[in-house]
Amino acid sequence: MSGCQINPNTIRPIRFFNGMCQMLDQRLLPAEEVWIDYTSCEGVAEAIRTMVVRGAPAIGVAAAIGVWFGVRDLETESCEEFYTEMEKICAVLAATRPTAVNLFWALERMKSFAKANLDRSVMELKIGLEYEALAITQEDEQLCIKLGRQGESLIPDGARVLTHCNAGALATAGYGTALGVIRAAVAAGKKISVIADETRPFLQGSRLTAWELQKDNIPVTLICDNMAGYLMSKGEIDCVIVGADRIAANGDVANKIGTYTVAVLAKEHNIPFYVAAPLSTIDLSLSDGSQIPIEERGAREITHVKDIQLAPEGIEVRNPAFDVTPNRLVSAIITERGVVTEHYLQNLSALF
Amino acid sequence: MSGCQINPNTIRPIRFFNGMCQMLDQRLLPAEEVWIDYTSCEGVAEAIRTMVVRGAPAIGVAAAIGVWFGVRDLETESCEEFYTEMEKICAVLAATRPTAVNLFWALERMKSFAKANLDRSVMELKIGLEYEALAITQEDEQLCIKLGRQGESLIPDGARVLTHCNAGALATAGYGTALGVIRAAVAAGKKISVIADETRPFLQGSRLTAWELQKDNIPVTLICDNMAGYLMSKGEIDCVIVGADRIAANGDVANKIGTYTVAVLAKEHNIPFYVAAPLSTIDLSLSDGSQIPIEERGAREITHVKDIQLAPEGIEVRNPAFDVTPNRLVSAIITERGVVTEHYLQNLSALF
Repeated sequence: MSGCQINPNTIRPIRFFNGMCQMLDQRLLPAEEVWIDYTSCEGVAEAIRTMVVRGAPAIGVAAAIGVWFGVRDLETESCEEFYTEMEKICAVLAATRPTAVNLFWALERMKSFAKANLDRSVMELKIGLEYEALAITQEDEQLCIKLGRQGESLIPDGARVLTHCNAGALATAGYGTALGVIRAAVAAGKKISVIADETRPFLQGSRLTAWELQKDNIPVTLICDNMAGYLMSKGEIDCVIVGADRIAANGDVANKIGTYTVAVLAKEHNIPFYVAAPLSTIDLSLSDGSQIPIEERGAREITHVKDIQLAPEGIEVRNPAFDVTPNRLVSAIITERGVVTEHYLQNLSALF
Repeated sequence: MSGCQINPNTIRPIRFFNGMCQMLDQRLLPAEEVWIDYTSCEGVAEAIRTMVVRGAPAIGVAAAIGVWFGVRDLETESCEEFYTEMEKICAVLAATRPTAVNLFWALERMKSFAKANLDRSVMELKIGLEYEALAITQEDEQLCIKLGRQGESLIPDGARVLTHCNAGALATAGYGTALGVIRAAVAAGKKISVIADETRPFLQGSRLTAWELQKDNIPVTLICDNMAGYLMSKGEIDCVIVGADRIAANGDVANKIGTYTVAVLAKEHNIPFYVAAPLSTIDLSLSDGSQIPIEERGAREITHVKDIQLAPEGIEVRNPAFDVTPNRLVSAIITERGVVTEHYLQNLSALF
């Protein structure tokens, strides 16, 4: 991945090289930095499902690699048969998590490549698909860097920036979307400090955002999700920037649960609320956010931390993993091709 | 405490009898039910500081008992000297936690009793102060029951009621304030279900509210704090009811961190937001909420659950334990003497 390095210390959660993939187990951070080897489609699917890897762009990257692992061992010489089997492989990966559209975008891109090359040999298809998965990986980091540059002018010097969940290097191939904008602002010489919501129940804020910003020496203060309103009411937050898991054509934004609450609070306090996401997160096939499927996860994420019981046995739990922020609460959507601040329906589709 | 029993199974976090006090260690619930014995003022002060006992009314009750433990062993025969020592004892207890006014209210009530009886013997003062501490304990549960009856008509049959933190039996001598209103609505034959915010970082919602409602067979669903907005946006919450740690003369409400966010969300969704608190929580000496001191607690409550590390070493943390909800977001304040829905400045003081 030498082509996309800007800093040899850059955090990248997925290493794809030499026919193998390693992923940083994001469930164990920050206490442990453990890399897990993957060589099969099923293994990658399990990594996505159990959140070894998470974050919409990173899930897309992982899925592309998973497709290649699935197809490389197919024994057929028939391209038609190869493609039929590839569709089954994509279905396995598609069934892992429903909300982040980058997953489906990456699967479609891999399938489109194969479809456009069915007149080649199976061997050529396999080689081409490895290249495609690698390209998705490398492009993801490159476009995060572009996205960061597009957005950094929105972040004033001295800003205290609230972020929710982790839309950082760990959520992408590298650099990050929301945190990419922050990194770009810092690189532009601005003094920026970040307030990180811990982001229950998976604690992406405390475990991942705090970890990666600390590694980059960007000042970060951790709070519980329910403290953002208090800090806003005290005038201690200048703007909000978050990532996205899927953006509908009208600019409604599905992102990590709690994002909607932060957006309502930002509006109440006249604080700008920015969303940073690559074009692969925008789903023009959905007219508004009500059509975005919201994953509900298991109770144990809320009732336990590791083996420690936080709630009584048998308690009823709701665990929606995402929510939808309506476009009226979004001050700008920052993409690698530009920043949209209004008339999302027209202006988002114009980016494509 | 036979005079105030309505249900032999009623949960009471403080047992005061036979010259001794036992408190249910609320740090260990729901995994363990451990009662700790207290016989000294210092012990009670430590129990308040470390949150063995918490909840504004319960802190007041504990403080009154702590005063009695402090004075009962005083060896002087001089009432003036007794009172001087008593003031020092009260100062120890007053220094434990700053926000809940019931603590200071209870200390004042104990001091007022002593002051009014300085013409009696020290022995009579000691006996009288034990009685006063017992009266504060018993009255607290009685007025919760009254408060519940005052408020229950606000809760419609079939309501799905969101609550934040624990304003239940465990936060009082028994029965609860916000949960007292819910208990009264259930006792009136209404079908009520409760959505409990887990309430980071101390998890009063998952550990305490879920526990005590489950014990009383009141349907309860646990969510993370950042999920309330999502459920409101889906039309799954009909009203909000919370307790209070201090209410200013104008009706601004200090309560557990996150309450303000819930109130902003309730306003955004046109959902009534109710506050249930005894008169001892209303501080007419403060004209508005900006004068209420907000306790900031240590980082470890956020960075760890028991010994499990949730955030990187050395990370900066903010941990305000309370926030202030402005009166404009409060649909009603429910007290044992009646319900106030507007013109809080005049109508709250009229209750006294």
